[in-house]
Amino acid sequence: MSAPLAITMGEPAGVGPDIILDLYARRAELGLPPFVVFGNLAFLEKRAARLGLATPIAAASAATAISIFREAMPVIDVTGLVPDHPGEISPLSARSVINSITQAVDATLSGHCRAVVTAPIHKGALYHAGFSHPGHTEFLAELCARDGKVPLPVMMLAHDALRTVPLTIHVPLSAVPGLINRKLILVTLRVMAHDLRQRFGIEHPRVAVTGLNPHAGEGGSIGREDLEIIAPAIADAQAEGIDASGPHPADTVFFPAHWSRYDAVLAMYHDQALIPIKTVAFDEGVNITLGLPIVRTSPDHGTAFDLAGTGKASSASFAAAIRMADRMTESFA
Amino acid sequence: MSAPLAITMGEPAGVGPDIILDLYARRAELGLPPFVVFGNLAFLEKRAARLGLATPIAAASAATAISIFREAMPVIDVTGLVPDHPGEISPLSARSVINSITQAVDATLSGHCRAVVTAPIHKGALYHAGFSHPGHTEFLAELCARDGKVPLPVMMLAHDALRTVPLTIHVPLSAVPGLINRKLILVTLRVMAHDLRQRFGIEHPRVAVTGLNPHAGEGGSIGREDLEIIAPAIADAQAEGIDASGPHPADTVFFPAHWSRYDAVLAMYHDQALIPIKTVAFDEGVNITLGLPIVRTSPDHGTAFDLAGTGKASSASFAAAIRMADRMTESFA
Repeated sequence: MSAPLAITMGEPAGVGPDIILDLYARRAELGLPPFVVFGNLAFLEKRAARLGLATPIAAASAATAISIFREAMPVIDVTGLVPDHPGEISPLSARSVINSITQAVDATLSGHCRAVVTAPIHKGALYHAGFSHPGHTEFLAELCARDGKVPLPVMMLAHDALRTVPLTIHVPLSAVPGLINRKLILVTLRVMAHDLRQRFGIEHPRVAVTGLNPHAGEGGSIGREDLEIIAPAIADAQAEGIDASGPHPADTVFFPAHWSRYDAVLAMYHDQALIPIKTVAFDEGVNITLGLPIVRTSPDHGTAFDLAGTGKASSASFAAAIRMADRMTESFA
Repeated sequence: MSAPLAITMGEPAGVGPDIILDLYARRAELGLPPFVVFGNLAFLEKRAARLGLATPIAAASAATAISIFREAMPVIDVTGLVPDHPGEISPLSARSVINSITQAVDATLSGHCRAVVTAPIHKGALYHAGFSHPGHTEFLAELCARDGKVPLPVMMLAHDALRTVPLTIHVPLSAVPGLINRKLILVTLRVMAHDLRQRFGIEHPRVAVTGLNPHAGEGGSIGREDLEIIAPAIADAQAEGIDASGPHPADTVFFPAHWSRYDAVLAMYHDQALIPIKTVAFDEGVNITLGLPIVRTSPDHGTAFDLAGTGKASSASFAAAIRMADRMTESFA
């Protein structure tokens, strides 16, 4: 028995719904696998009409979605009043946006869907409904808690064979050195090694770890963290049988001849991990959350309020996120 | 009247001399412009023999170099005893290495040579001869002092149309936030705007400035420097008529569709500027020093002691540095 991919509607004022409708309309051309949208059906019909898309949309369940997919976009209706106001967030939508995520995760945890592909949300729009998580990914991790234990979500950016993980993410650069610690590096390397095996089918994953400082500190002459924190953490991981190496100078490790020797690169902070992906991936990078009991991918862009409702948003990253979720769960299909 | 490019010999224990000899041997195939090497003639002959290159080498002056170039590699002999020991630095060579740089700069300042292309040096090897400058570039700036005033050298990395400048360079990441200041950004933007006009022939140079923090601080919620230091510095530059913009999120500005709208990107630190160049440029990135009264380029690699004397070092970046110096001084040729 096969299962569809679960797609969340995301912020209704943003480009997520536009792109989902566009991708459904072009499903054959793009060769996309069957998916089911967790979203508000009435809203999605209005947005389709606004975009001039004559897309048939049909209420579905996870069980009926695949058979419906050829004829109409299957939607698991998330009830509520969701206004179709591109670019304008509304407190009315918040509950439906949150429920869309909750239901998609539940359906995937229970095996009715294969993986979750999330459309971008806008945290500010969700505060009204009591959303107090640091971000989308942390919320997903909480939904995946087992016996009260929340898994550590690890963000990976991927484009073809280039995969990077930022150890620290949305923090000021001045806070980064203080957040780099041996335990966090080790725990992150464990998640990476596990998921590269489990989710990507790489039997012996090789992970390169970047240095924090220029030239990985040049033996301690440009900062001590590379020598005193990162190198010992790599040794810890190696002692557990993880094929980690480094610290590598962050500029030369992204030299294509270098990173292609590794299955993933663990970088120390946001820009170190994201610059190489965006430099080579144009708009086709995918965000993947490792460390969860389910596969979750998302496009590597935000709500882009200025493009919502215009039909001008690029669907490339979202299509790549769907394909990535598909490949990561092929054995399920 | 044309003038040759000046090439310095660099560290004799490193790959610089090997690459210079290789490039001379392949000058026709690579279409390289005439150059003259400031180096120790006896040493260069020994190194050529070690590499199995039957390269004719001839003593020259800047005036005779171009006519000699077709038949033999013209060398302005920098006297001294320079041992041919690949990979092993020697105090004997230090004075010749320094003199090679001093003489090449003098010849270029006086117009006998068009530009200086420097081979990598090893600072540690030069301490014996009293070399106490922070680096190669600072030494060059001091040699270019006029009336006791040392110009501010600005490092640019370039590959085709992608040009980046790191505001801070070889400092620990933890020191970067404290070094970002309004004055330094303004002064650097002035040098960039001036040299993009003067050296690159770009009439109205457009410079993108990156943020320090992820997403350029997201309006102050991820660090304040973008808002409080970088944005005002950009306004200062704009008030002087410099077409600077930003702060741009460092990950999305290196999206090719974005950076291609700019003639250069001013980044806040080493890895932010170098990762995109190395990611796209393979081994063909070039280091250019702006802000000097002369054009200076160099390959974007070090002495690579382990490859010296083997003939295995890639000449690509050095060849690109020669071509760049040639293009930047075409009107001279």
